[in-house]
Amino acid sequence: MTAEIISIGDELLIGQVINTNQAYISDKLNSVGVFTDRMTTVGDNEKDILDAFKNAFSTHDIVAVTGGLGPTHDDITREVVCKFFDTDLIVDEESLENIKRIFAQRNLAPHKINEDQALVPRSCTAIQNKLGTAPGYFIQKNHKFFFVMPGVPYEMKAMMNEFVIPFLQKQKTGLVIRHLTLKTTGIAESFLAEKIGDINSIFSPDSGTTLAFLPSPLGVRLRISVKAENIAQAEKNISEVENILRKKACRYIYASGDIELEDVVGGLLKERRLTLSIAESCTGGLIADRITNVPGSSEYFDCGVITYSNESKIYELGVPSYAIKKYGAVSRPVAEAMAQGIRTKSASDIGISTTGIAGPSGGSAEKPVGLIWIGYSDKKETLAFKMQFNSSGGRRIIKERAAQAALEILRRKILKIPEE
Amino acid sequence: MTAEIISIGDELLIGQVINTNQAYISDKLNSVGVFTDRMTTVGDNEKDILDAFKNAFSTHDIVAVTGGLGPTHDDITREVVCKFFDTDLIVDEESLENIKRIFAQRNLAPHKINEDQALVPRSCTAIQNKLGTAPGYFIQKNHKFFFVMPGVPYEMKAMMNEFVIPFLQKQKTGLVIRHLTLKTTGIAESFLAEKIGDINSIFSPDSGTTLAFLPSPLGVRLRISVKAENIAQAEKNISEVENILRKKACRYIYASGDIELEDVVGGLLKERRLTLSIAESCTGGLIADRITNVPGSSEYFDCGVITYSNESKIYELGVPSYAIKKYGAVSRPVAEAMAQGIRTKSASDIGISTTGIAGPSGGSAEKPVGLIWIGYSDKKETLAFKMQFNSSGGRRIIKERAAQAALEILRRKILKIPEE
Repeated sequence: MTAEIISIGDELLIGQVINTNQAYISDKLNSVGVFTDRMTTVGDNEKDILDAFKNAFSTHDIVAVTGGLGPTHDDITREVVCKFFDTDLIVDEESLENIKRIFAQRNLAPHKINEDQALVPRSCTAIQNKLGTAPGYFIQKNHKFFFVMPGVPYEMKAMMNEFVIPFLQKQKTGLVIRHLTLKTTGIAESFLAEKIGDINSIFSPDSGTTLAFLPSPLGVRLRISVKAENIAQAEKNISEVENILRKKACRYIYASGDIELEDVVGGLLKERRLTLSIAESCTGGLIADRITNVPGSSEYFDCGVITYSNESKIYELGVPSYAIKKYGAVSRPVAEAMAQGIRTKSASDIGISTTGIAGPSGGSAEKPVGLIWIGYSDKKETLAFKMQFNSSGGRRIIKERAAQAALEILRRKILKIPEE
Repeated sequence: MTAEIISIGDELLIGQVINTNQAYISDKLNSVGVFTDRMTTVGDNEKDILDAFKNAFSTHDIVAVTGGLGPTHDDITREVVCKFFDTDLIVDEESLENIKRIFAQRNLAPHKINEDQALVPRSCTAIQNKLGTAPGYFIQKNHKFFFVMPGVPYEMKAMMNEFVIPFLQKQKTGLVIRHLTLKTTGIAESFLAEKIGDINSIFSPDSGTTLAFLPSPLGVRLRISVKAENIAQAEKNISEVENILRKKACRYIYASGDIELEDVVGGLLKERRLTLSIAESCTGGLIADRITNVPGSSEYFDCGVITYSNESKIYELGVPSYAIKKYGAVSRPVAEAMAQGIRTKSASDIGISTTGIAGPSGGSAEKPVGLIWIGYSDKKETLAFKMQFNSSGGRRIIKERAAQAALEILRRKILKIPEE
């Protein structure tokens, strides 16, 4: 079964909103063996939407549409669905109840435009929206499936998980597709390719298995994809390739799948009953933000400080003022003193720190933009690592790379992975 | 002139990577009067790429392609471009020099697969890539333009800004398109629509002007779009609608265009020579991360602390232990004590704080997940605001909403906007 995903909205075409729905939907469809082979985005106008519907429904088994279901005048998806399936609108009582319930929860009365959202195309089946006022719809015709969902990501996600995916799981036939992604950091794409070597020695080109290198500022992901007759065979094929890749690039692989580095580090801290505190300068709170994205992080995260000024480094962390004077705030001694300072102050097992030049200004020939020192301190040792990131990605990318590098140092230290 | 944007990459179709390039390219094309009316995503396979090229080049004046130019075996865009334009590959000497330069900067020698990236389709013109090893290409045929760029966002962005946009500016004809977005926060879409009232009283339906409501967890954006004969007329039309909207929804509009709330707050602090310190519990560093995303934020941002445990709230911020015992850590008195504590400790003009339940666990009937107290303290007053966010978006969305609400409170306090 193949699918096309259609996103509707002028805000997408003019580049105001980044489309995260397509990636989410295709990932979920994949999990039930449906492969998306095209994604299309069109604006809020009848002709383009109709063309996209015709084109998609004539060439794919499944069409998933999002967007244009809001209460305001610019949302026309529902009317075009009526036209495409030659039907009209009726009130869906369950959707109307849902709208009233949502407004009552907020102690508000629904307006007319909100109540009108309970109108759904007659020949469709409504998909209830527990998180918002716009119902989705679903129609089955000529053994094909046409789903319409709101563009609001969390509403769409709930419909995918609670209705669309369970529904398709029941209908599913054909080959099983499985993917596994191994996430690496701290190594460039071409060097990683070199370490892995000739892929034809890992699997044959006609085995239905592929390997892709996906670079990003935070690291290169290795995606293994397999097609097989059944789940057991698919999992076996994936696992064979995974084992070989893990042998060849062991120290760089920090996780597989959707797992983030902060999840891995959090898991390690929890499992080993270690506590962490963080002293950030150039990363400005981003490391703590990532650490605290993990539910339950309060078990191992003691406290964080963001010491932007020299005074706060001295006052909050006990960094010696002569070290700042002699070596500068962006230096090995200051990074080390920050990591040790936050660790002892908060009586944590581990302290980490960052101090660097995120730019765009503040760089010099000796200390260019992108230079970051990362400090690490535990009860046995205190040390610091120098990183020089490319400054061309800008301030935010430098912050993100520095935070990633700090978390990776933490991971390798906890796991006692020796330095290269 | 109309455009289609084609993104190539299996990683996009399986939902592993969110496509940010399409939004960026369409926004830039818009700025020179080129309207994107379709975006298509296909995988790394010859047939689908060729179909997309044919379809796009036959119906649009401009085709912008990204992705599949990397050094590894899964990147086939270059070969398909050769097939589509019936040409072969030659070495582009400038690109080869560039590859050698980039490797020399890193003190590395290029591998064969890196040097091969200097091969470009013979009938195309190379677009140099200062930030990476893969050159782009460009071909003009039948008064149409076909651009191919790398999928790595910052490399593509540099090519758009340094080559594609200046090039198109020279070719441009036709109507001028302009957009303006007004960003609001703290009001739901339907209530904002109510405040704005009948849009036909603001502009007529056939005036070439449109208004769209774009909701997100951080607020609703109002996008005004106009088409006009010339720039002066377009700007006049935009400005008229803007003035009316600003009158109707004044207190909720914090910025226009790409400006973020942290930019606005940072500008206000700088202009008024005020300093800020931040004490975060449930937002875990996110407010400080946003504040420090702004270049030059060290001028007004003193220091931040992330006090996750009760002990650190008491020890770092001087929150009275009886307040935590009597009212709980998520309460008005604790939020106020945190804001006042960080302000006095760091001798800042303003202190803000957050304490709440980000979930998914830790909620109760009395204090459900999504309950956040935001504290504010300056030399004249210390107070706190209660927020109850919908818990359905999950932990990260709650953190983001709480950080946004805290920054908005800061903005309204600095501007002395009275409470509703």
